[in-house]
Amino acid sequence: MAKNIIGYAARSATTALAPFQFQRRDSRRNDVEIEILYCGVCHSDLHQARNDWGNSAYPMVPGHEIVGKVISVGSDVTRFKAGDTVGVGCMVDSCQVCSACEQGLEQYCEGGHTLTYNDIDRHDKTPTFGGYSEKIVVSDKFVLNIPESLNLEAVAPLLCAGITTWSPLRHWKVGKDSKVAVIGLGGLGHMGLKLAKALGAHVTLFTRSVGKEADARRLGADEIVLSTNEAEMASVKGKFDLIIDTVPYVHDLNPYISTLSLNGTLVLVGYLGGLEPALNSMPLIMGRKAVAGSVIGGIAETQEMLDFCGKHGITSDVEMINIQGINDAYERMLKSDVKYRFVIDMASLKTTYA
Amino acid sequence: MAKNIIGYAARSATTALAPFQFQRRDSRRNDVEIEILYCGVCHSDLHQARNDWGNSAYPMVPGHEIVGKVISVGSDVTRFKAGDTVGVGCMVDSCQVCSACEQGLEQYCEGGHTLTYNDIDRHDKTPTFGGYSEKIVVSDKFVLNIPESLNLEAVAPLLCAGITTWSPLRHWKVGKDSKVAVIGLGGLGHMGLKLAKALGAHVTLFTRSVGKEADARRLGADEIVLSTNEAEMASVKGKFDLIIDTVPYVHDLNPYISTLSLNGTLVLVGYLGGLEPALNSMPLIMGRKAVAGSVIGGIAETQEMLDFCGKHGITSDVEMINIQGINDAYERMLKSDVKYRFVIDMASLKTTYA
Repeated sequence: MAKNIIGYAARSATTALAPFQFQRRDSRRNDVEIEILYCGVCHSDLHQARNDWGNSAYPMVPGHEIVGKVISVGSDVTRFKAGDTVGVGCMVDSCQVCSACEQGLEQYCEGGHTLTYNDIDRHDKTPTFGGYSEKIVVSDKFVLNIPESLNLEAVAPLLCAGITTWSPLRHWKVGKDSKVAVIGLGGLGHMGLKLAKALGAHVTLFTRSVGKEADARRLGADEIVLSTNEAEMASVKGKFDLIIDTVPYVHDLNPYISTLSLNGTLVLVGYLGGLEPALNSMPLIMGRKAVAGSVIGGIAETQEMLDFCGKHGITSDVEMINIQGINDAYERMLKSDVKYRFVIDMASLKTTYA
Repeated sequence: MAKNIIGYAARSATTALAPFQFQRRDSRRNDVEIEILYCGVCHSDLHQARNDWGNSAYPMVPGHEIVGKVISVGSDVTRFKAGDTVGVGCMVDSCQVCSACEQGLEQYCEGGHTLTYNDIDRHDKTPTFGGYSEKIVVSDKFVLNIPESLNLEAVAPLLCAGITTWSPLRHWKVGKDSKVAVIGLGGLGHMGLKLAKALGAHVTLFTRSVGKEADARRLGADEIVLSTNEAEMASVKGKFDLIIDTVPYVHDLNPYISTLSLNGTLVLVGYLGGLEPALNSMPLIMGRKAVAGSVIGGIAETQEMLDFCGKHGITSDVEMINIQGINDAYERMLKSDVKYRFVIDMASLKTTYA
């Protein structure tokens, strides 16, 4: 066992996150030991800490938007060395042999990928603990290079919010002639705008809230459509090749389907559950349109996104917090009161244990 | 006006089809005048004759699976001459200038294609009358060549049931390594099996009815899965690249989604309406799967399908009727009592007027 690690954990679905000491596994030959500098706060951290999905195990150390420095590497590791700036996202392992893994699509691993936290290590069966902590040990295949040119604290959210929007943009071949819309302006949505714009697309934001125009334009939107305004919705009928729907709760897809072009796709990345009210098949059939889903992205694709962000100077818009402020941050996230991602400065952990 | 034409028409939503005399327009310079030999009976003929979709105009002469011989051609027509064997499907015109038409996707014409019946001619604003009649006049761009090698009466259903399944097979690039499933064994489904098999795919039929195994295998199915049997459904979990869903009434898609592979698509071709019970987004997101729709096919694609059928000796399984039996045929269609498509021998019209 590795030495004691300090972090913050949820002890149950109903208790606030609090200081927690735990063990990391001994490094294996292909492992990278990382000192965590920054960790983004994803809405799914809150869902899992509170057992909203019914599959939480406690104690739980959340956090899967991790940026840090390599402390040491196992004997088989050649891609990293001590001092490298690296990232870890939502996955820390996968089966490595299935058809999906062979295609670099570890997020769809048939054997089930291993999540960065609230999961079980597939080799030694110990629980995985996430990035709200001082150090992490991760198999080198799941460690990403971080471009040195970027502001590291603002890179952290790229590891989940960034790749979750990047992957559908790339899979559906968004480029210069594409017309892309993003539904919702949160952690995912603001990255969707930035990345789609940098890929050369004409970018539209769908939002239910007035007053987001200036911010949306700054983030990359060419147009803003108020989805509650019928005339504005009618003005973009049949327009979009791809709509990335980041809304995390149940909502009516039908008004958005009518804004898809022939062969267009609406891809869900935020909401897990039944599509209600009922999706009408008529416009799908009459325009060869599709409703699809996408989850995070593969490791090679995540590296591609990070390299692209390095080249284009793209990071997340972040609000820095200390780890001691995590519970307040969760409350603010519930009110969508964050522009656009909280990131924990992990140096603050030390004051807890000073 | 062209001379009096004899046919069968519905005079209202509640009256049986009966003999009817009407005018065809004078031929334009780009028109082809066709003597109709055979006309397939599509389930949508029944829906429209009975105003099930609320947009029917009477008197209505149904029929959009037309095979016949060219009688004469307009002065600008070079592709056809008197005596040629030709076909006409669901469309007789489109705007010819929109992006969809330019791509040969007249079925998605932004200006709205002109249907073979129950529609309005876009040039002279006269009603269009379909194939339950002795002759039809159609713009040459919407006339298809029929391979002489095929049994003409069994070709008629290719013009709708054939192209409706061919188009998604081609759009989603089905070939030798594809795993395709077809839901439902009716007019569309039996063509889906034949065409997918001829394209080299491994083909599975989903059916709710026992006893279809021998027929399904004869038509091209490698496997038959009883969709009401949970063990059989579980045995094909994650298997199919493409599922063509031909079911014409509301049904639960969720059990079929679980049988799609990573990146797989379920394409609806038969049911227009709300998807109930609610489609669950979870498996779409966790497997990058899609639910899409598709309607008939473009004219070039229809010719491609007919040529493919000529090369592979593919026609529909048909049950021949006389026009006088059309009302009985409708009643049998309502009970799915047809293997697998009724086709009217239009020579029988003459006895009505003899």
